[in-house]
Amino acid sequence: MSVAVIGGGSWATALVKILSEHPIEIYWWMRKKEDVDHILTYESNPRYASDIHINLSKVKPLTDLQKAVEASSIVFLAVPSAFVKEILLSLDKESYKNKIIVSGIKGMIPQENQLITDYIASTFDVKPENLCIIAGPCHSEEVAMEKKSYLTIGATSEATGKAVADCLSCRYVKSTVSLDLYGIEYAAIMKNIVAIACGITHGLNYGDNFQAVLVSNAMQEIGRFVNALHPSGHRVLCSSAFLGDLLVTSYSQFSRNRTFGNMVGRGYSVKSAQIEMNMIAEGYYAVKCINDINQELSIDMPVIKAVYNILYEKISPATEIKILESKLS
Amino acid sequence: MSVAVIGGGSWATALVKILSEHPIEIYWWMRKKEDVDHILTYESNPRYASDIHINLSKVKPLTDLQKAVEASSIVFLAVPSAFVKEILLSLDKESYKNKIIVSGIKGMIPQENQLITDYIASTFDVKPENLCIIAGPCHSEEVAMEKKSYLTIGATSEATGKAVADCLSCRYVKSTVSLDLYGIEYAAIMKNIVAIACGITHGLNYGDNFQAVLVSNAMQEIGRFVNALHPSGHRVLCSSAFLGDLLVTSYSQFSRNRTFGNMVGRGYSVKSAQIEMNMIAEGYYAVKCINDINQELSIDMPVIKAVYNILYEKISPATEIKILESKLS
Repeated sequence: MSVAVIGGGSWATALVKILSEHPIEIYWWMRKKEDVDHILTYESNPRYASDIHINLSKVKPLTDLQKAVEASSIVFLAVPSAFVKEILLSLDKESYKNKIIVSGIKGMIPQENQLITDYIASTFDVKPENLCIIAGPCHSEEVAMEKKSYLTIGATSEATGKAVADCLSCRYVKSTVSLDLYGIEYAAIMKNIVAIACGITHGLNYGDNFQAVLVSNAMQEIGRFVNALHPSGHRVLCSSAFLGDLLVTSYSQFSRNRTFGNMVGRGYSVKSAQIEMNMIAEGYYAVKCINDINQELSIDMPVIKAVYNILYEKISPATEIKILESKLS
Repeated sequence: MSVAVIGGGSWATALVKILSEHPIEIYWWMRKKEDVDHILTYESNPRYASDIHINLSKVKPLTDLQKAVEASSIVFLAVPSAFVKEILLSLDKESYKNKIIVSGIKGMIPQENQLITDYIASTFDVKPENLCIIAGPCHSEEVAMEKKSYLTIGATSEATGKAVADCLSCRYVKSTVSLDLYGIEYAAIMKNIVAIACGITHGLNYGDNFQAVLVSNAMQEIGRFVNALHPSGHRVLCSSAFLGDLLVTSYSQFSRNRTFGNMVGRGYSVKSAQIEMNMIAEGYYAVKCINDINQELSIDMPVIKAVYNILYEKISPATEIKILESKLS
């Protein structure tokens, strides 16, 4: 069995590590030839998660996307949402036929405000039952350290979900399947916005009491939004795929969205925070998409609106969060 | 208007501070004459939350419980659950008649496994509509620093709840009323058990990914338990009174239950951890009560059961949490 992992970041590297625990061949695509060469020589990713040892008896790093996809029955996508279109469109539209496509991307297609799975289903020759997403709570840094972690595989087909969950289960990772693909995909996107809010309030010197209220209110916002778009009687907001994913992103020191928010709260401009971090905080793009979608829905989401106002309307963080205070309970 | 605050700990001190923001007289009862004298001389509590300034133009510290209760229309209880019976029974049973009794105690009556509000209603001449509880998320340390915090007042009467919420609202605290008194009281007790679980796993070197899953599963456990005991169609588990309270206790560095669990996870015996901390971790008693109650209900609560097994059945933390790993998802 062969699979492809598309992307050279820390989450892609963690996925490669988990997949390497199985007797499968892993085609690992990344953009830069020099990174491939580094991995082939030093058995580690030069840029991200460098402490993860790459087992070259199973992993084939390469820059040839066509070869990676052609050889594989499952394709894992782990690139920033801003680049996914460009990368996928570089192959013929039929290239993905009969393959299982798994999105590990925690964002939407910018401008179009489309879920990654919706975009793939509508653009390529991929059946909806062959689409999956990976939801946390799972920071790649802790996968690197083999700390016990849990993944939820969102799918519309139990069999497809199970096949992917099996590939992503090992001694230190337990993966389970949920058929609430759309709910989980939206929640995974929106959690990054909440993490930015947590960072902003921390940067403004709000405390643990406030953050607990912020996260509780935000979890309800996510629930209202997802239930409006995709009503479901079986959705459990306090499950790992919803609440757990939100918690790890909002509370962990490893969260880049939280770090980005923290800098904004401390007075950095959005631009300088982005330059300083040298990483893309997905929540920055996500809040624009979710706010756009909500223009029509008009769901009450004060936390998400506050982040939008700070990042896009240039309202001062202190002013905006002061207003938010009275909307929470 | 006069109120009484019963207890000399950090939460009692924080309540005195919040109440002092209003034009009311506060009779502050504590056990030790020397503490009263210290406060009268230095305007601060010598033992806990010493950085809170006590405004003696409004606050009357005293050791005479009868006088404190007699003079007051609202009595706030903020003593460890282990001492509440002894303290309340030191007055005549009619002393509490027509007074609003507000419990800020996060535990149950030991041995009897009774909620504080149930105990008061069944033992004293207090009408159920005159009973309230205070739920977090609100660490006293952040009240001391005047960091924005939120309280939920659980009541069975909207009017009583509102009267208490008004006393406990000020520039840095927003208090709202919930009529789900019993649900909130149970959740406030159970959160301390979860905080011990978080501490234990942290002490065992589990990471943020695991903690997020642990807290998500535990929130569902609390929901199952409370819904079985007091079914309600209106209960929102992701609200501040449930989830927020759980988060602040599970994640905050100020949580004594988490600290206690952490020591147990790192190999301290229960006894030596208690001696070292010199503070009572309410969750230690709570898990015994909840486990007893669940003997009849048999609700699936693996996180709470694991804490019980570690603290009372002397199962090694590493073994018990390893077993727990497979029960979470």
